[in-house]
Amino acid sequence: MKPLLQMHEDAEEIFAAALAGINPEHAVRRRCQREKDQLILGERTYDLAQYENIYLLAAGKAAVPMAGAGASLLDDRLTKGVVVTKYGHTEKSDLLPDSLELIEAGHPVPDEKSREGAETLLKLACEAKEKDLILCLISGGGSALLSAPAQGLTVQEKGKAADALLSSGASIHEMNAVRKHLSAIKGGRLAKAAHPATLICLILSDVVGDDLDVIASGPTVPDGSCFSDALEIIERYNIEDRLPASVMDHLRSGEKGDPEETPKAGDGLFSKTQNQIIANNLSAVKAAQEKAQALGYRTLILTSMLQGETRQVARVHAAIAKEILKTGHPIEPPACILSGGETTVTLTGEGKGGRNQEFALAGAIDLAGLDHVVLLSAGTDGTDGPTDAAGARADGHTMDRARKLNLDPRRALKNNDAYPFFKTLDDLLITGPTHTNVMDLQILLVRKAD
Amino acid sequence: MKPLLQMHEDAEEIFAAALAGINPEHAVRRRCQREKDQLILGERTYDLAQYENIYLLAAGKAAVPMAGAGASLLDDRLTKGVVVTKYGHTEKSDLLPDSLELIEAGHPVPDEKSREGAETLLKLACEAKEKDLILCLISGGGSALLSAPAQGLTVQEKGKAADALLSSGASIHEMNAVRKHLSAIKGGRLAKAAHPATLICLILSDVVGDDLDVIASGPTVPDGSCFSDALEIIERYNIEDRLPASVMDHLRSGEKGDPEETPKAGDGLFSKTQNQIIANNLSAVKAAQEKAQALGYRTLILTSMLQGETRQVARVHAAIAKEILKTGHPIEPPACILSGGETTVTLTGEGKGGRNQEFALAGAIDLAGLDHVVLLSAGTDGTDGPTDAAGARADGHTMDRARKLNLDPRRALKNNDAYPFFKTLDDLLITGPTHTNVMDLQILLVRKAD
Repeated sequence: MKPLLQMHEDAEEIFAAALAGINPEHAVRRRCQREKDQLILGERTYDLAQYENIYLLAAGKAAVPMAGAGASLLDDRLTKGVVVTKYGHTEKSDLLPDSLELIEAGHPVPDEKSREGAETLLKLACEAKEKDLILCLISGGGSALLSAPAQGLTVQEKGKAADALLSSGASIHEMNAVRKHLSAIKGGRLAKAAHPATLICLILSDVVGDDLDVIASGPTVPDGSCFSDALEIIERYNIEDRLPASVMDHLRSGEKGDPEETPKAGDGLFSKTQNQIIANNLSAVKAAQEKAQALGYRTLILTSMLQGETRQVARVHAAIAKEILKTGHPIEPPACILSGGETTVTLTGEGKGGRNQEFALAGAIDLAGLDHVVLLSAGTDGTDGPTDAAGARADGHTMDRARKLNLDPRRALKNNDAYPFFKTLDDLLITGPTHTNVMDLQILLVRKAD
Repeated sequence: MKPLLQMHEDAEEIFAAALAGINPEHAVRRRCQREKDQLILGERTYDLAQYENIYLLAAGKAAVPMAGAGASLLDDRLTKGVVVTKYGHTEKSDLLPDSLELIEAGHPVPDEKSREGAETLLKLACEAKEKDLILCLISGGGSALLSAPAQGLTVQEKGKAADALLSSGASIHEMNAVRKHLSAIKGGRLAKAAHPATLICLILSDVVGDDLDVIASGPTVPDGSCFSDALEIIERYNIEDRLPASVMDHLRSGEKGDPEETPKAGDGLFSKTQNQIIANNLSAVKAAQEKAQALGYRTLILTSMLQGETRQVARVHAAIAKEILKTGHPIEPPACILSGGETTVTLTGEGKGGRNQEFALAGAIDLAGLDHVVLLSAGTDGTDGPTDAAGARADGHTMDRARKLNLDPRRALKNNDAYPFFKTLDDLLITGPTHTNVMDLQILLVRKAD
């Protein structure tokens, strides 16, 4: 077998290992063990015999497998629970016990089922009493899947506000400050509802930096912002005109000192709450590293917090590949450089693609002519943009092969049209839905010719 | 002293060490030693007693210090020579022997003195006979400083063609293929003029990847392109309308098989030519690494071939800083990440700045709030864009300090207006002209709080 083909196989094997490393079921089981009545969670132990009722709440794209693991841990002690996931993300849901209600809802655009999901979760959390325990399992997508507008607002009004924020230029933290004040569940309100029950929240992080209050908009995490912050942000980005009057009324009513304010760290509402990240992008990167080492590569984890314009970030990766070949920096070949995070594609065309395919395409252009360099970029959820691919693979000969097939890589990049480009080359990576999500992963392999 | 201040001092000390590492005079002396009549150049030795005349040709921004070292090596054996440098880059030129003619010329826009420089060099090269030796010293800027249009063309016509190419979207290699065919000195023509004399060319590289035929447009390097390639490129980018008729005539006359074709590797014209890179961006990076290690940092050379949009490349550096603080990847703190190369600023505003100041500004935005992170980006020639600064320094508190001074970092970035931003903060790095140039350097320091 030719070395380059072998390297492509290696890259895919490394990606598969990364996915295995963030399997949501395993992630729950790894963090949480049961010995008789003891639920062991890292350094803390919960004596299940102490609790009258034990509830399970799960929300997000990985809700079903996480709930499967949770239910199996709680076993006979599970009173009841609810699982909210994206339409179609229900593989193995028939293995969930009957005590768990399954709700499928809209993502990325919330719908009425998202409201039902959020309200059902809140209702169960409110039911829980001081001697009860709630195991809450949160994964990416939870923000859309749990959409309960604050009292007096409709899902549509809240959606309009979200749209206005998205195009305003506000940061994710600023957007969240507003959204949390338009929600009945976000910004710690689920924890408030659960109080005074004991709340364990296990979180699969799909955000760069793992900020607890950003993942699914932090339903179990104290909020640092208040109504007046939300109003200030709206003023700062000058979007009042684009918000429904009801939204502004709600935020202004809150300003005058409102019981509807999000719960704060000092409120005493979180004394029995424990939030734990059980897997994140770095988990995937580390699992990839282990596999790459087993395959004989020297490895370097660049970062699991990659951000920035996709095609430019790809160029930095190409520059590193070239340096490895030329001087053995930052590490000697055979080298595997690993990075992860979530880059951004600023659309300049109307083609079909996703940020991972665009990453591979931009990489291919800079890597042209290099032997024994392979770049794989893929989304850990198995979906890259509005395509059926998880990502794509590139190497130093991608450009040559494209030329022979009359493909124009630069035009494809300009039009954000990486999907047909890699489809024609048969270089798409297709995994199908992986039922997990810790954002994207890049695997860069560099060898020297023998 | 506060740790952050100490880190800023460290960063500047590391940058100073990098500059010392690419001192052009030292670079010549390091690569080239003289023992009696022997000139020792790596593994090869030239017996100066063999040669009748020995000429020195130097061109580029570092021409004066390189010529100084060269003249001192050749000493009594130096017959005569010519040194072409940028206006004002003549510090220490009074130390050059009288046998060297000094010509100051236009850069980055060539002028009539650039033509005089090129022609004087060519004339001397032609004078050299089989038993003569030429020591040629090339540094960045040589391309503009040696501007001799091919016969029948004016400097202005050649300049128009260069402008049309620059804005065409053609790659540097494509642009060079055309330019070499409009020049009397580039694309190996200086070596052709020197033939059959022995030619040693020592090169200070100011291009990413150190391609010999790109640095100063490769006057001593075989050319891989021919007239028909040049015409194809003009067609590909559809710029014929923007080229003077004389330029098209010249290229077309060449197409029919022309003695004016650039010399090729197989021509036998290069058998007595030796080209050697004596310093490049990696030399600076490695000198920086040595100093950083001496200051107690763990070091990682990311790449010396950085390319891409400046502000996005900066974001990748910020993502690495965050990962170091959070998980100790790619290396444990105290860490010094080093990179170099030449990024690109796509202008979106009309402010004042340079790519290094923009790098620091974009970095500051992403690093906001982090303790003990310092980012220094600076040009090794001491000039960043049209400013008097070499670059700027940023840290996790830059944003806070800016806010207190009513500076808006995001607006400054949008307007490419980093210079007044860092000037107000007193965070410009001002070195003055360094009389060398291996592009830019980034120094990222990360410590953990005690």
